[in-house]
Amino acid sequence: MIADLVRANRSCRRFDEQHAIQMATLKELVDLARMSSSAGNLQPLKYMLSSDPAANAKIYDCLKWAGYLKDWPGPPPGERPGGYIIMLHDTRICQTVDCDHGIAGQSILLGAREKGLAGCIIAAVNRPKLSTTLSIADHLKILFVLAIGKPKEKIVIEMLNSDGDIRYWRDAEGVHHVPKRSMEEIVLASF
Amino acid sequence: MIADLVRANRSCRRFDEQHAIQMATLKELVDLARMSSSAGNLQPLKYMLSSDPAANAKIYDCLKWAGYLKDWPGPPPGERPGGYIIMLHDTRICQTVDCDHGIAGQSILLGAREKGLAGCIIAAVNRPKLSTTLSIADHLKILFVLAIGKPKEKIVIEMLNSDGDIRYWRDAEGVHHVPKRSMEEIVLASF
Repeated sequence: MIADLVRANRSCRRFDEQHAIQMATLKELVDLARMSSSAGNLQPLKYMLSSDPAANAKIYDCLKWAGYLKDWPGPPPGERPGGYIIMLHDTRICQTVDCDHGIAGQSILLGAREKGLAGCIIAAVNRPKLSTTLSIADHLKILFVLAIGKPKEKIVIEMLNSDGDIRYWRDAEGVHHVPKRSMEEIVLASF
Repeated sequence: MIADLVRANRSCRRFDEQHAIQMATLKELVDLARMSSSAGNLQPLKYMLSSDPAANAKIYDCLKWAGYLKDWPGPPPGERPGGYIIMLHDTRICQTVDCDHGIAGQSILLGAREKGLAGCIIAAVNRPKLSTTLSIADHLKILFVLAIGKPKEKIVIEMLNSDGDIRYWRDAEGVHHVPKRSMEEIVLASF
């Protein structure tokens, strides 16, 4: 059921780094993105993939994790992602990706979840540094980095409190809580 | 398998209009979007839903269909969608939706496909007209309209020709063809 997969597909930031991610797995995930819809079918998304520990370490150094968790700088060694998918916008094809990056990102993450993996769309990227590190050409704009790995954290969805605070948080047991708006709040009208 | 669902989830523009779409179905689909990831968990997306033929007709009048099919003005009566999900950006929450609209749209469309329905993200919307028609408040920006219905067209994916023409097209039998770039073209590097 897609509902189970969507519900289970939470942004994951702690992984079992012992679990290597195969390049073939990353390619299968990108193939899901490739087969997804694209505005005007322009398909301006390009990808760079990493499953190699040394390259992973360089990519990790360009990322910022979990903006709301001020005391947590990101996953420590041993809990880092086994792979990365860097999503790029080829500006030679068109000037905007519309919502293609979200469509493709969701296809990739649902595919990862089905494989028992998990991931996180990371937009807080040091783009100049990553561009230099991976020799990314000027016409390719870094949209975001998808971290992929074997999940090693418990994440729960809960209803937004009446105070309206949407920030995710971690409890004393390390469980990650994600408050979601209600259907009543987001559906404004029905005809 | 998510791969089958992603592959089967093609933008559909001709429907069996006799097949009514229930409001409960549209709400189930929006619930998938609600449970999906959101940048900074801000959840700025809001929705208006229509399953009523009279409201559907008013929404239809605000849409432009299939930009590449110059001789086809859109589905004729009898082949129009049974329902619509209008996705809005609540600018009171934040100024950008990042890729939330794509994530949510893909969740909705995969959910529809699983139910034997299909849909299309329509961004060519007469926004002023639709805002007036549905009395949409100024702080709500129309992102796109999702048409949902029982599919009544055959759509095939094929490899992009060497001429690089990404435009979808319809053959003499009415089959809709969607050329996709190859993995070799879109994966630029792997480490």
